[in-house]
Amino acid sequence: MSERIHEVIVVTCNPDGSPHIAPMGIRQRGSQLLIAPFRPSKTLDNLLREGNASINTTDDVRVYAGCLTQHFQWPLVKCERIEGLRLRDALSHEEISVYRIKDDVERPELVCERIHHANHRPFNGYNRAQAAVIELAILVSRFHLLTPEKLENEITYLKIAIDKTAGRKEHEAWDWLMKKVHSYRKRNCA
Amino acid sequence: MSERIHEVIVVTCNPDGSPHIAPMGIRQRGSQLLIAPFRPSKTLDNLLREGNASINTTDDVRVYAGCLTQHFQWPLVKCERIEGLRLRDALSHEEISVYRIKDDVERPELVCERIHHANHRPFNGYNRAQAAVIELAILVSRFHLLTPEKLENEITYLKIAIDKTAGRKEHEAWDWLMKKVHSYRKRNCA
Repeated sequence: MSERIHEVIVVTCNPDGSPHIAPMGIRQRGSQLLIAPFRPSKTLDNLLREGNASINTTDDVRVYAGCLTQHFQWPLVKCERIEGLRLRDALSHEEISVYRIKDDVERPELVCERIHHANHRPFNGYNRAQAAVIELAILVSRFHLLTPEKLENEITYLKIAIDKTAGRKEHEAWDWLMKKVHSYRKRNCA
Repeated sequence: MSERIHEVIVVTCNPDGSPHIAPMGIRQRGSQLLIAPFRPSKTLDNLLREGNASINTTDDVRVYAGCLTQHFQWPLVKCERIEGLRLRDALSHEEISVYRIKDDVERPELVCERIHHANHRPFNGYNRAQAAVIELAILVSRFHLLTPEKLENEITYLKIAIDKTAGRKEHEAWDWLMKKVHSYRKRNCA
């Protein structure tokens, strides 16, 4: 049986003190959580150096799409129990500390301990367009693994949920990602 | 620009006092929310008669899949401000009262007012398998609108997220729905 993976926003601290915002799939294991970023990864470097991070959940999918399209203007505030920042508008956030490292050339595993957990705002229920934006973000981060046909088929499928169930933020996130798709198509046809 | 639709669990009261649990897509409009069920709908009948309901969010997708597969064993507790029940393990819930009815032969619109809103447990972030279960639930509720080919293609696509990111509850919900798919395939081939 596989373990559930949650797509969250990890905020770490760069060497120059600036924040680094990145989407990541994490696994929860009781009071611990597992982060396993593929190298190279700024989040990994920051986690190894600083030893902590904030794990944020949000229903604003622009934060996910923004990480792939250079939109990082999300308000951040100080964490409670670690030296670090979190998304101000997170639905919930955890503050975590790296507890054990299983090193690997390709994909090290970081077991982290939850130091603080706060529930800020209610989840409003599943939105199919938000799920479609998450899927498109994954496609956009993996162009090199996709055939042009698979890319077009999946976009056509995902677009249905956007047309039927998206609000303003979901449309904006979708449009940001589709700009990347358009550039990729152009490069690929040139 | 379309309005965002959230897939939630609506709990209403049947004429005999028993609870009725149903998934439904709702629209939020400031302090109001819009429910527009297609006739015939028990939820609609109950809402028109009783004038209220609880709107529940949960990250246990078995509740959604269960409504289509006769699994209704979810613990319920009394609401705070209305005569009614809510999911005990909801992440959040709202108690709503029907405010205005725009009648329609096919799909009446009920504008509802939010009387109470409670945030019980934190959202843990997007899980692609949960989104896949929601999509499969929608397919299962619409067999009559699908070609066999479309059904098979979409299941193949959704199954990828199940294999990669599901935990125990998502696998269970998926399996319940797939039993319905298998029966449908059998009937269709007979």
